[in-house]
Amino acid sequence: MSLLNRTIKEIFPQDSELRDSAKERLDQLALPHWALGDLMDLSIDLAGMTRSMHPAVTRKAIVTMAGDHGVVAEGVSKFPQEVTPQMVYNFVNGGAGINALAKQAGAEVIVVDMGVNADLKELAEQGKIINKKVGLGTDNIAKGPAMSPAMATRAVESGIDVANELSKRIDIFGTGDMGIGNTTPSTAIAAVITGKSLEELTGRGTGLDDEQLAHKIKVLETILDRNKPDPKNGLDILAKVGGFEIGGIAGLIIGAAAHKKPVVVDGFISSAAALIAITIEPFVRDYIICAHRSVEPGHRAMQEKLGCRPLLDLNLRLGEGTGAALAMNLVEAAVAVLTEVATFEEAAVAGADK
Amino acid sequence: MSLLNRTIKEIFPQDSELRDSAKERLDQLALPHWALGDLMDLSIDLAGMTRSMHPAVTRKAIVTMAGDHGVVAEGVSKFPQEVTPQMVYNFVNGGAGINALAKQAGAEVIVVDMGVNADLKELAEQGKIINKKVGLGTDNIAKGPAMSPAMATRAVESGIDVANELSKRIDIFGTGDMGIGNTTPSTAIAAVITGKSLEELTGRGTGLDDEQLAHKIKVLETILDRNKPDPKNGLDILAKVGGFEIGGIAGLIIGAAAHKKPVVVDGFISSAAALIAITIEPFVRDYIICAHRSVEPGHRAMQEKLGCRPLLDLNLRLGEGTGAALAMNLVEAAVAVLTEVATFEEAAVAGADK
Repeated sequence: MSLLNRTIKEIFPQDSELRDSAKERLDQLALPHWALGDLMDLSIDLAGMTRSMHPAVTRKAIVTMAGDHGVVAEGVSKFPQEVTPQMVYNFVNGGAGINALAKQAGAEVIVVDMGVNADLKELAEQGKIINKKVGLGTDNIAKGPAMSPAMATRAVESGIDVANELSKRIDIFGTGDMGIGNTTPSTAIAAVITGKSLEELTGRGTGLDDEQLAHKIKVLETILDRNKPDPKNGLDILAKVGGFEIGGIAGLIIGAAAHKKPVVVDGFISSAAALIAITIEPFVRDYIICAHRSVEPGHRAMQEKLGCRPLLDLNLRLGEGTGAALAMNLVEAAVAVLTEVATFEEAAVAGADK
Repeated sequence: MSLLNRTIKEIFPQDSELRDSAKERLDQLALPHWALGDLMDLSIDLAGMTRSMHPAVTRKAIVTMAGDHGVVAEGVSKFPQEVTPQMVYNFVNGGAGINALAKQAGAEVIVVDMGVNADLKELAEQGKIINKKVGLGTDNIAKGPAMSPAMATRAVESGIDVANELSKRIDIFGTGDMGIGNTTPSTAIAAVITGKSLEELTGRGTGLDDEQLAHKIKVLETILDRNKPDPKNGLDILAKVGGFEIGGIAGLIIGAAAHKKPVVVDGFISSAAALIAITIEPFVRDYIICAHRSVEPGHRAMQEKLGCRPLLDLNLRLGEGTGAALAMNLVEAAVAVLTEVATFEEAAVAGADK
């Protein structure tokens, strides 16, 4: 059996007994009923995911996966492709947004080369990044598929490998991405899986003007016409209109779910990967925490399909895992509510009138 | 000159040069322009408040002020008044929501007795709380004013005292409240200062049903009819329809502003105190960070009047400073963006097409 199929067989829904136990304790906390709102809902999820009344979330990693996209030839991004490897160096040197925010949240940053169009072997040999390169960028999806079916499987299994390796020492994962042009494949994935129109889903990425946005929508129409991915087949969607880092993130999410560990899904690109992951295996959904609502207009429809309410809404549109890092503090806070707040009885506080 | 008047004279708007310097740096960061959205806006505010390109936010305190309310005699709360002192003991013993969330955020919890209807001298003598008691709970505002004008001034000046004392060792303040019945005076304050209707502003507090909510609105109508506070006079509003902890929080906010230190305003009660503070001195507004949007329906109008967009929206309705504690992580993240992220030039990353 393939690694992917073996991994999928290890994914089960959240544990309903632990969810009930968590709810029972939270109902008795010395505060007006459910007065910590969404944090309490999140506590229940964390108990259900981890099968524990003391969910482990201390050892945190943001896994930032990088890859390039042939579709940049169509003029869908403001930035040149060379920025992808430049940003990998920036991550390694600690100067990027994700470095600053992960440090604040007490999370490690793990950088993975899934398919950057540059030779990054030196960084991998120095142990500064993980080398899982599937190719030197995808093919141009406006002309044909992004990658072969074998490469799509390899991308996802590489993400599972990373999750398997890190699970020995990490309690909670955050996803992150870097790849110039990757809002275009992500929007294509969103269109296929949510069924919404490209007009509704397509956004300005790193900063397109009105004319450039109209052009991006046209390119996306061509992409979907030419490739016709099967909406029920996550690997087919990934191969036809996806990206290497998107496949890697999907694999990381699947791997985290198999290890019963929470995975905080960052923004627009990570959500596209999460849609691929739940299309491959719907139970994965039970391990996903949506970090934030991106500025990209399609993000709302994607999160509805994922079935999650984002924790933050701060007009972020960076990716890299920055939103996931910010949300990790809220996850830790949710655990603190479950494990550290006293009940009415423990605190000897009078309850409400019935 | 009184302490309040001396303090007000020390409050100046944010420094526009530092705001400009911060914006200049943020414009050059190696990321799509303003891609960290609201965090970047917050970075500018923090530079402007603290007059520094490295705003100090490491030493954090949540100041949780407690007081009782004579208006509970009108049946406006689900919980009995004895819960106020019981919760003070819970704070001191570390079992409350604010203890768990402040610990997660690396913030100290400072508990102040502004006017609890119980003898808490022992806790003060043991150094576990600060004693600033103005009275044993306010008078019933459905029958007359909450307190005398002298007591209102004393409550605010007590808050300033606390800010002055803590400013020696604290970089950033969070506000918190405890006081059974205190959504009622807070709603009255909101009505006076925002000019909105009681129907729009009044909420269920700790959990009123429809009938109890209708009763609360009637009580609030009586409160406003009987007291007729002057909307332009913060101390008059506080004396007539406020509370001791609300006055203390207003003073803390005024004191923080005089020290050019950011103050993270928690939920509904703290926002009522902030409205009192900006009515006393409008420049105070420049030092306020709104932590979150509460479930209480009037909170939106209050935050519009305060001129701030809340950082979080998590269906919280606890108070105690819990939302402020959660938001402190975001404040720290905003500073990290300003101080730790490399510019395009520093990181040797190519910029966008012009």
